[in-house]
Amino acid sequence: MFTTHPFQAGSDPDKFHEECGVFGVFGTEDAAAFTALGLHALQHRGQEAAGIVSYDGKRFHPHRAMGLVGDIFGDRDVIDRLPGDSAIGHNRYSTTGETVLRNVQPLYAGYGFGGLALAHNGNLTNARQLRRELVQAGSLFQSTMDTEVIQHLIATSREARLLDRVIEALRAVDGAYSLVALSRRKLIGARDPLGVRPLVLGQIGDAWVLASESCALDIIGADFVRDIEPGEIIVIDDEGVHSHKPALPTRKRFCIFEYIYFARPDSNVDGRNVYEARKAIGAEMAREAPVDADLVIPVPDSGVPAAIGYAAEAGIPFELGLIRNHYVGRTFIEPTDEIRHLGVRLKHNANRGQLDGKRVILVDDSIVRGTTSKKIVEMVRNAGATEVHVRISSPPTKSPCFYGIDTPEASELLAANHDVDGIRRLIGADSLAYVSMDGLYRAMGETAGRNNDAPQYCDACFSGEYPIALTDMNDTDNTSQMSLLAELA
Amino acid sequence: MFTTHPFQAGSDPDKFHEECGVFGVFGTEDAAAFTALGLHALQHRGQEAAGIVSYDGKRFHPHRAMGLVGDIFGDRDVIDRLPGDSAIGHNRYSTTGETVLRNVQPLYAGYGFGGLALAHNGNLTNARQLRRELVQAGSLFQSTMDTEVIQHLIATSREARLLDRVIEALRAVDGAYSLVALSRRKLIGARDPLGVRPLVLGQIGDAWVLASESCALDIIGADFVRDIEPGEIIVIDDEGVHSHKPALPTRKRFCIFEYIYFARPDSNVDGRNVYEARKAIGAEMAREAPVDADLVIPVPDSGVPAAIGYAAEAGIPFELGLIRNHYVGRTFIEPTDEIRHLGVRLKHNANRGQLDGKRVILVDDSIVRGTTSKKIVEMVRNAGATEVHVRISSPPTKSPCFYGIDTPEASELLAANHDVDGIRRLIGADSLAYVSMDGLYRAMGETAGRNNDAPQYCDACFSGEYPIALTDMNDTDNTSQMSLLAELA
Amino acid sequence: MFTTHPFQAGSDPDKFHEECGVFGVFGTEDAAAFTALGLHALQHRGQEAAGIVSYDGKRFHPHRAMGLVGDIFGDRDVIDRLPGDSAIGHNRYSTTGETVLRNVQPLYAGYGFGGLALAHNGNLTNARQLRRELVQAGSLFQSTMDTEVIQHLIATSREARLLDRVIEALRAVDGAYSLVALSRRKLIGARDPLGVRPLVLGQIGDAWVLASESCALDIIGADFVRDIEPGEIIVIDDEGVHSHKPALPTRKRFCIFEYIYFARPDSNVDGRNVYEARKAIGAEMAREAPVDADLVIPVPDSGVPAAIGYAAEAGIPFELGLIRNHYVGRTFIEPTDEIRHLGVRLKHNANRGQLDGKRVILVDDSIVRGTTSKKIVEMVRNAGATEVHVRISSPPTKSPCFYGIDTPEASELLAANHDVDGIRRLIGADSLAYVSMDGLYRAMGETAGRNNDAPQYCDACFSGEYPIALTDMNDTDNTSQMSLLAELA
Amino acid sequence: MFTTHPFQAGSDPDKFHEECGVFGVFGTEDAAAFTALGLHALQHRGQEAAGIVSYDGKRFHPHRAMGLVGDIFGDRDVIDRLPGDSAIGHNRYSTTGETVLRNVQPLYAGYGFGGLALAHNGNLTNARQLRRELVQAGSLFQSTMDTEVIQHLIATSREARLLDRVIEALRAVDGAYSLVALSRRKLIGARDPLGVRPLVLGQIGDAWVLASESCALDIIGADFVRDIEPGEIIVIDDEGVHSHKPALPTRKRFCIFEYIYFARPDSNVDGRNVYEARKAIGAEMAREAPVDADLVIPVPDSGVPAAIGYAAEAGIPFELGLIRNHYVGRTFIEPTDEIRHLGVRLKHNANRGQLDGKRVILVDDSIVRGTTSKKIVEMVRNAGATEVHVRISSPPTKSPCFYGIDTPEASELLAANHDVDGIRRLIGADSLAYVSMDGLYRAMGETAGRNNDAPQYCDACFSGEYPIALTDMNDTDNTSQMSLLAELA
Repeated sequence: MFTTHPFQAGSDPDKFHEECGVFGVFGTEDAAAFTALGLHALQHRGQEAAGIVSYDGKRFHPHRAMGLVGDIFGDRDVIDRLPGDSAIGHNRYSTTGETVLRNVQPLYAGYGFGGLALAHNGNLTNARQLRRELVQAGSLFQSTMDTEVIQHLIATSREARLLDRVIEALRAVDGAYSLVALSRRKLIGARDPLGVRPLVLGQIGDAWVLASESCALDIIGADFVRDIEPGEIIVIDDEGVHSHKPALPTRKRFCIFEYIYFARPDSNVDGRNVYEARKAIGAEMAREAPVDADLVIPVPDSGVPAAIGYAAEAGIPFELGLIRNHYVGRTFIEPTDEIRHLGVRLKHNANRGQLDGKRVILVDDSIVRGTTSKKIVEMVRNAGATEVHVRISSPPTKSPCFYGIDTPEASELLAANHDVDGIRRLIGADSLAYVSMDGLYRAMGETAGRNNDAPQYCDACFSGEYPIALTDMNDTDNTSQMSLLAELA
Repeated sequence: MFTTHPFQAGSDPDKFHEECGVFGVFGTEDAAAFTALGLHALQHRGQEAAGIVSYDGKRFHPHRAMGLVGDIFGDRDVIDRLPGDSAIGHNRYSTTGETVLRNVQPLYAGYGFGGLALAHNGNLTNARQLRRELVQAGSLFQSTMDTEVIQHLIATSREARLLDRVIEALRAVDGAYSLVALSRRKLIGARDPLGVRPLVLGQIGDAWVLASESCALDIIGADFVRDIEPGEIIVIDDEGVHSHKPALPTRKRFCIFEYIYFARPDSNVDGRNVYEARKAIGAEMAREAPVDADLVIPVPDSGVPAAIGYAAEAGIPFELGLIRNHYVGRTFIEPTDEIRHLGVRLKHNANRGQLDGKRVILVDDSIVRGTTSKKIVEMVRNAGATEVHVRISSPPTKSPCFYGIDTPEASELLAANHDVDGIRRLIGADSLAYVSMDGLYRAMGETAGRNNDAPQYCDACFSGEYPIALTDMNDTDNTSQMSLLAELA
Repeated sequence: MFTTHPFQAGSDPDKFHEECGVFGVFGTEDAAAFTALGLHALQHRGQEAAGIVSYDGKRFHPHRAMGLVGDIFGDRDVIDRLPGDSAIGHNRYSTTGETVLRNVQPLYAGYGFGGLALAHNGNLTNARQLRRELVQAGSLFQSTMDTEVIQHLIATSREARLLDRVIEALRAVDGAYSLVALSRRKLIGARDPLGVRPLVLGQIGDAWVLASESCALDIIGADFVRDIEPGEIIVIDDEGVHSHKPALPTRKRFCIFEYIYFARPDSNVDGRNVYEARKAIGAEMAREAPVDADLVIPVPDSGVPAAIGYAAEAGIPFELGLIRNHYVGRTFIEPTDEIRHLGVRLKHNANRGQLDGKRVILVDDSIVRGTTSKKIVEMVRNAGATEVHVRISSPPTKSPCFYGIDTPEASELLAANHDVDGIRRLIGADSLAYVSMDGLYRAMGETAGRNNDAPQYCDACFSGEYPIALTDMNDTDNTSQMSLLAELA
Repeated sequence: MFTTHPFQAGSDPDKFHEECGVFGVFGTEDAAAFTALGLHALQHRGQEAAGIVSYDGKRFHPHRAMGLVGDIFGDRDVIDRLPGDSAIGHNRYSTTGETVLRNVQPLYAGYGFGGLALAHNGNLTNARQLRRELVQAGSLFQSTMDTEVIQHLIATSREARLLDRVIEALRAVDGAYSLVALSRRKLIGARDPLGVRPLVLGQIGDAWVLASESCALDIIGADFVRDIEPGEIIVIDDEGVHSHKPALPTRKRFCIFEYIYFARPDSNVDGRNVYEARKAIGAEMAREAPVDADLVIPVPDSGVPAAIGYAAEAGIPFELGLIRNHYVGRTFIEPTDEIRHLGVRLKHNANRGQLDGKRVILVDDSIVRGTTSKKIVEMVRNAGATEVHVRISSPPTKSPCFYGIDTPEASELLAANHDVDGIRRLIGADSLAYVSMDGLYRAMGETAGRNNDAPQYCDACFSGEYPIALTDMNDTDNTSQMSLLAELA
């Protein structure tokens, strides 16, 4: 989206952050309740805001608000105000900047042919260029979201049928996206031609479900049917599911970081169980970078599966040596110096009873800026650990993402500016190892490792190889003011 | 506006209600503070919401909120967030229906040529038709306000210059309006071809001011320069004030009800002092409908000037026999039966010490539904008055307004369904007289009374003669859903 | 109250301010609705907060909040949560300082004999001393209000009967007060021995009503029965009204300023109609200080009755030359310099159409600091008046009040530091006259004027003669911190 | 507390709930910031509300609010409004009923000798009786908390010294409590004679710290010094730490459930590391109730340490087969039927990829009502598990707690009404085992198991043996209404 500067840090400055989750359902009187549950299961993909639009055969009904899904949609009254047999929903990731209700999805527009609600996960890389062209031709924008570009493209299309307008609009845009849309008669799902972002199809009774991850099917008891394919447009109506593939087939480049960190461990995305993938990376690390130690401890919670995989492969006990405080909430946003200094302890505490006098292998999924890693290593040492060996279940993150993930710019990425031993010194570890690129691909079942001529995944954040054109990158025209969103912050 | 059904009653169900006040200033570093003050002086024209957009040479800065001007803009911090040498502002009248922040003016849009903020007072009578045509051609609407139609007409104009686009847009619309607009280099003011709604030009130092009424000039110490003329478009820029009259000259039809009730008594609008006009109507009534009595008392506050005029002409003492409670606020919105029954006493109390044993002439500006008049007459009698003679400083209100005033539909207008004696019986008065149409025109200085061939004012609410076409009246297509505004209510 | 420093300025820094109104009703199922209406009619006595406690035969039910009565109690749901046949209520005046919910009355306490809710208008002059004694003996205070002293005195009384405990408590306190209290079986009303603050008894059907002013009877349609007498304790129960006079009779000293400014003009308090009293003062001024002029104009709204009285006596036309903006609300609390400079125009505007070229007599009720008067005189001159003669319907206010009125300290009272001609020069008037002390008493019907040996009213703010001991004045012990109220501000 | 009906269920109806955590610090300019951090570390002991009172040498400064510590105290401005070198703080557990700001601790009272702020964790078992006696003698209560009884006892004590008053007050009360109090010169800590609730002493630089658990020392980097002893009163002033033991020594009866569930795993309380204790119980269970299986999975998060202990002792792989959604927040409080039906899935999801075709040992800490256990077993089976063996790391919970823990009444406790095999059938497990009472004591290091003649811990919830008299249990007088708290809910 335009609103999310790709280099802006989010809530945990030492992690990459997913930007948004989507959900849609067609054909059940519990459409809004199911969508609320699905968004709750996808809460890890965006915690800033959430929205649902339902359609009851006569009108579209929306509810969008800042906050967590449970807080927004947990009240029966809210669900009752979202009647109808179909609905789509969206979780928005918390970014700084224009975080305003008007930017909360799903977006809606009334067209000559009727209304259409639209929500997407991802980022368009030529949205700014398209927007400028549309404005020149007389379109008025109300948000700063790239999603709105798609709406105007649909509005100004000369095609008669909605599907043809959508196809024409998606042909015009570049980028990584999984989108869901709801018209008066159809639920539409689409994935970009490379399939960078995930989208799955499920079924419960006679109803069909679209969701970013399979964990959103589990929560409502829906069965997983299949992944939407790269470049596929799914149209669901009273007659069932129709698949359209208007683009030429290209080789899939699914985001490998979904397996490392973004997706929930109990999800299956793009044909693979995330927990198993993480355990496999841990085992791969145990083989690539073994070390003699007393304990394997994860940085909770994201490091747990890889740590279990490492411990099992290495035959070293797995222990919870770091305890996470789950009550952090939206908390301590303007901390005192005292609190800032104590920093990481707001979220974690080292259990001296476990760690005193021990040689420790500390497993985490990634190092972004390194500030948190440094504090955790220090905390583990202060709790009495005699050695601290850090193992990271991803290759070094050297390049920012422009496909829907919130990452710092290269200058702030530790691995873009230091080699592994330099990083080891900075975080104060006795040893440091990242899983290798080939090791990562092997853990994904690619026994021959990465195919450098035609990589099986999008791994731009490690390799710097961007599979989709970055048109807006070179666009420096920031002068036009599209909206007054700032007032609503 | 679309949002204001012309037949909907407002806060006082027994009054007509003004819909909106506008203000603009160009060329002073106190632009936002002046606009806040001007809107405060125009608060009687709209109490639901208010907004200001300023421009600082680089960006447009908005602040819009529900509530009173003083509550929204009384805080220095808010004014400080509205930097720049030019600003426009708007007061919105409280109507039921889609009362949401997204409908609060000024509206803003980013065009190919830059941004434009826009606010207006009035009502377009062909907005629905125009909106449908625009949507068919690919425009997406974000509000339900007729103001947005003007923005899309400007956006889709093929003219190059802003002024020419505005002229093209205003040629397309029918209705009564006074509008102010702010671009990066210009403050624009415009009045509809008949000049139904007021708009004045003022000056303070090197700065120029546009406002609905002159009282908004007084509050900032600006000098009154002149009324904007019917059909005139004023463009103010660094070189000064430029007048454009793209339409053929037509005979002015200023809203005569502005003098009777809407405008503030200390304002001059369309060349006349409102307080003096009201006193003159009162004197006219004393001549047209004299009666022997002990006291002349006004229904406060709007009846005061006419009562003073009546008392002076008749030589009968003027007294405050009804005391108004000024703390009503947004109060007692869902009253208990007990409170509803007591009704008018929330706002007024009769002073028995004044009224006991007296013959009373009660002066009010209008009778709409008659419910309040009935209760006030009863209250005056209960306080001991032996006779109650009601004098109304307007002719009977028989027809709804479609030009920016909130009026009940004809079936709820007492005078549309009863003759004067019937009304007298319903409200329980000993005698009742309205000022005559000719008497009203004489009080306006038209010594020959109303020119029935070419009336000097718009008096459609009395005469049923509508000078502007009512295109949308016959438009019954309500099916398309333009936006999801309801969620924000 | 402790919370109201007697020298603190309130919302209009150029007026004295009433501190609180009380209301009580016994014997009607509409107890809470009536109390809400009564408090609404008494809104001018306090706008900061309001509270009601009802009793339904089993439990006491409270609702207290910051804000206006209509906003707090206008919703039917709120009234429905206050069941029962008896209730008391209280309006609190807005002061700076410890303005917190815990200080909003009625207060409530559970005693050995049952619960008691209590509310009062006035100020105890030995509350601090009593509080210290109570704390030393083991009482714990929860508020900073003097009202709570009465509760602890009742709690620690050794008497068995509630009435005897109340008598014992009131014997211990000095000050000016009108209080209402509600136990499980009784509604109690009491006035201090000198009767400084007002309290009236009314009746509606079988129910009895207590209220600060008669306008609160009018709003519910209750009949005025009589004033509670100085030093009288009224006990209302199922058997009717019982009067107790535990103190020796003393000469009444009702607050004369209630007639000048505090009370509503349509009220009767202490046997006199307020509007008539004000007109009589105006007429007295016309005789004492005549001047040749074209118009008499009031400073609205408080100056209106005296101006009407003056104009009628002098035979000079009465006109509304100053228009008041009634939408000021709680507004412009942190104004910009620009707004501060324009000051009084937020509230008033001079009508040039009226004043241009005229000699004007400007009538107001009092001059406190003089800042507003100066600005109004200037505004009237700027509107074209050739002469401005100011007439004030009270004697010069030289001394602060300690009996429940919020007044500046002497150093800030203009009349404490300047003679009349000095004040005239400061406010820029051509002439200035205050009503004389004897003239004021004559207007009250005391044909011989003030009895200086035994004044008929409390006029301490003019005369400096304080009829009740000011015990806490000499108490400089501020060290003990009774509560943590500040947190709730 | 009075406010917490001992039989009321809290947020997770299938867990017991801790009621409150306390913290105090003396002798550092970061007193408030340290207290905020300490309360954050103790957030698991109460999530409804939190409060801090600091003392700056002149005044006590409070801040209390509903919500999480981070939300209340995360803002620097809030900490800056709590100046001083000493402070105490309190976390309140969320209960239904009179959950109002006035019941949020610390409480404060102004006494003859100065102010005292007070906060406690625990429950007084004769508070109602004491309160009635105090009210009869003239004390007025402002809250419904038992904490206020202690304040009134201190206020009405005839002793001169604060310490002697506190001793006298604590001699009068029965119950389980750990309290902290702050006067103008002293920080006081006290633990009930049996030491049921925890309280530890720490040191950082020259400052002293009191906290419910050692994890609150870790977060600020303070060193653990020792546990406060049962019946001990600690007084900390400028001269250091003074210990007083006014009661006769009795045998300690620390709450054994703190080790099973309440305390944080990284805390040391009463001389023992909680994580190690839980692992030891898990190992004990592996020995007492072994079963052939493929996986050991915990019910996250509380079951993790015992599951690790079980898995290691049994030599069976530990896996995260249930994924917890950490974004539940204050969520879904009035769920739709649909959501209620799906119930436990809001919080957990079973990972089919892990569980399909496996024999699973499911480890949890307790079964209260059994509703959650039943759903989790079903969820694990639906994910493909072929056998589900449940192991519970506490003995059956048969009796409610009256010592500061929120538990259902006996009729709702599954184990009070069913034997183990009955429970197994109800929750649908293939086998079910609880740790034995002796096994639990052995895991605590009591190699001979429980000493039934003189149990080493309070285990009333398992054994029904209550070591402290339950005076208020037989007190049925509910008639007196102490306060109007309900209004503030």
